[in-house]
Amino acid sequence: MKPHPTLIIDALQYNNWSEQIFRQMNEGGVAAVHVTICYHEDFQEMVKNVIAWNILFERYYELIFQGRCVDDVLKAREEGRTAIIFGFQNCSPIEDDIGLVEICHQLGVRFMQLSYNNQSLLATGCYEKDDPGITRMGRQVIREMNRVGLVVDMSHSAQRSTLEAIEISERPIAITHANPLFWCDALRNKSDDVLKALAESGGMLGFSMYPHHLKDKSACLLEDFCSMIARTAEMIGVERIGIGSDLCQNQPDSVVEWMRNGTWSNERDFGEGSAELAGFPEQPKWFHGNRDFNNIFSSLRKTGFSENEVERIAGLNWLDFFKHSFGPQKT
Amino acid sequence: MKPHPTLIIDALQYNNWSEQIFRQMNEGGVAAVHVTICYHEDFQEMVKNVIAWNILFERYYELIFQGRCVDDVLKAREEGRTAIIFGFQNCSPIEDDIGLVEICHQLGVRFMQLSYNNQSLLATGCYEKDDPGITRMGRQVIREMNRVGLVVDMSHSAQRSTLEAIEISERPIAITHANPLFWCDALRNKSDDVLKALAESGGMLGFSMYPHHLKDKSACLLEDFCSMIARTAEMIGVERIGIGSDLCQNQPDSVVEWMRNGTWSNERDFGEGSAELAGFPEQPKWFHGNRDFNNIFSSLRKTGFSENEVERIAGLNWLDFFKHSFGPQKT
Repeated sequence: MKPHPTLIIDALQYNNWSEQIFRQMNEGGVAAVHVTICYHEDFQEMVKNVIAWNILFERYYELIFQGRCVDDVLKAREEGRTAIIFGFQNCSPIEDDIGLVEICHQLGVRFMQLSYNNQSLLATGCYEKDDPGITRMGRQVIREMNRVGLVVDMSHSAQRSTLEAIEISERPIAITHANPLFWCDALRNKSDDVLKALAESGGMLGFSMYPHHLKDKSACLLEDFCSMIARTAEMIGVERIGIGSDLCQNQPDSVVEWMRNGTWSNERDFGEGSAELAGFPEQPKWFHGNRDFNNIFSSLRKTGFSENEVERIAGLNWLDFFKHSFGPQKT
Repeated sequence: MKPHPTLIIDALQYNNWSEQIFRQMNEGGVAAVHVTICYHEDFQEMVKNVIAWNILFERYYELIFQGRCVDDVLKAREEGRTAIIFGFQNCSPIEDDIGLVEICHQLGVRFMQLSYNNQSLLATGCYEKDDPGITRMGRQVIREMNRVGLVVDMSHSAQRSTLEAIEISERPIAITHANPLFWCDALRNKSDDVLKALAESGGMLGFSMYPHHLKDKSACLLEDFCSMIARTAEMIGVERIGIGSDLCQNQPDSVVEWMRNGTWSNERDFGEGSAELAGFPEQPKWFHGNRDFNNIFSSLRKTGFSENEVERIAGLNWLDFFKHSFGPQKT
C-alpha cells in the first residue's frame, strides 16, 4: 500500500478492537493511534491488557504494530500500516508506587492522565465538586513522568489541577481529547485559560468527536466543528492542535457504564449521559470511524485552512509533539 | 489472672509485636488495643498482615485473641488477656473497589482512616496544601462503612475532610489518635471546630502520647498532658474522650521512614520529624508501654477527675463507642 498523502494521527481511540477496525485504520490512512489500555485497572490488570494487545500485534502484524517513537509512526505510514501507541486514562496502574512510572514507560505507555473523572492520588477529575490541584504525590509523579518520557494528559481533569500540571511539568503536556468550553459547555471541555496556558507551554489539544463534547451532540454539523477548530487555532495557534477523536467504535453500552462506574460506587453514575441516555451516544454522521478523517480535512480546507495547516492538524503537530515527548529528558 | 480494676482500652498502637509486648499488655491490664494493620498496603498486602496476626493469635492464645465486638473486650478483661482489634491508617486496602469495604469488615477490621498524610481516593491528608473535602468515591464509601459497621477514623486527615466526614457519616466517627491544636500546634492535631463537631455527633477522640503530638514533645510533663485532657473534657464532654496512645514500641527507625514515604515519592519526606530528627522520637518518661497507663490515671485523679471519669477515659467511653459502632447499621 502506498503512503497516504496526508499523515494522520489520532490521539485517542478506545474501540472494541477487531480486524475490521484495523483494516479501516489502514484504509483511512491512519499512521498512528493513541489507544487507551486503562480506565480503572491496577498495574497487574493493565499488564493483562498489554498481553491482549501483544496477541493482536502478533495476529494482525500486517495491519498494526506497537508504536513507541516517531520513527514507528513514519514506518507505519511508509508501510501502510498503523502504529498503536498505548496510553492510560487514569493513573490507577501506577497504584501508589512511583517506581511503576518507568516500568509503564518500558512497556510502551506514552500517555497517562493524572486523573479520570474522580479524584485520584495525583489530581482531581472534572466531576469532583472541588479541585485542590496537584497532590504531593502528583508533584513527584509529574517529575518522574518528565524524566522518563511519559506524557501528562489532563483530558478528564478539573481546571485547577490542569493549570497546575501545565505549570509543574517541565515538558509540554497534552489534552488528547477534549474541545473548547467556548463552543460546547460540557464539564469535560476546556476553558480559554486552560487552552492558552496549554499552548503557551508548547502543549497539544486533540479535538474530540465524542458527541457529549460536541455542540448539538450527535446532530453537530461538520461546518460548526471546523469553524470551532478555526477559532481555536486563532486563539492558541495552529501548531498546538490536532485530532483526538475519542472514537469508541463497536463498544456495547456496558463499556461506557463501566468507564463511569468502575467499582467505586454503589449508585449508578451517568457521567456525561443521563438516565434517559445512559449508553454510548450516536456518532455525528460525518465521523463513524477511521475512514472518515478526510471528511474533516475537506471541510477544514473549505473553512479556510491552507494545505499545510490541514496537514499540521491531521498529524504533523502530533508527530512533532511525539518527537519531543516520548524519550527520556536527559539524552 | 483477676480482672484489672480499671478497664483499659487503647485506641491505637503499632508496635513491633512480640510475646514481651503481649505480656506487658496483660500485666498493664489492657483489655483491648486497636492495632494498625495497614499504612500503605493494598488489599492483598493487607491480607498478608492478617495472616501474620492469625499466626500470633495461634501462638500466643493465652495472651491475646482477635477482638471483633464489645463482648470480646469484656471476655479479654475477664480472662486477663487482651483483645486485638484491627484497623487501617489508610484506605489503600479497599483500592478503588467499594465491595472491599464489607470484605475488610468480615476480616475483622473495625476502623479505617479515609486518608493517611496524603490525598487518597476518599479524603485529604493533613500534609496536603489544600483540602477539597470528601470525594465522590468518599461519600459512597462512608455510606458503605456506616452500613457494615466499619468506623470512619480521621486521625491523619485534613480539616475540611474531617468536618465533612463528621457531617456525611450517619454514625459517629472517631479520631483515634490525636490531640487538640489549642495545646500543641502540630499539623496532625485537631482544631476546636473539629473537636466540637466530633463530640456533637457522638464521636470519640483518643489522646496520643506520640511525642510529635505533645507540648514540649518528649519532655512533655504528665501534669501538662492531664490538664490538657481536663480542658478538652470541659470543651467537649468527658464522655467523648479516651486514650489512643499511638505507641510504636520497639520499632526501628526504618519503619517511621516507611510510614512517611511508602513508595509515593522519590524524595525523602520527614513528616512530623526533620532531617535532624528523622527517626522515632523518644517517648515521654511517664509512658513507655502498656504497663504505664496507671501513671496517667493517677495523674488524672490529681487533676481533679472523679473515679468514674477516670474509668470513662481509661476505657468505658471506647467500650460504649465500640458497642454502637462495630455491628451493621440495620440490625
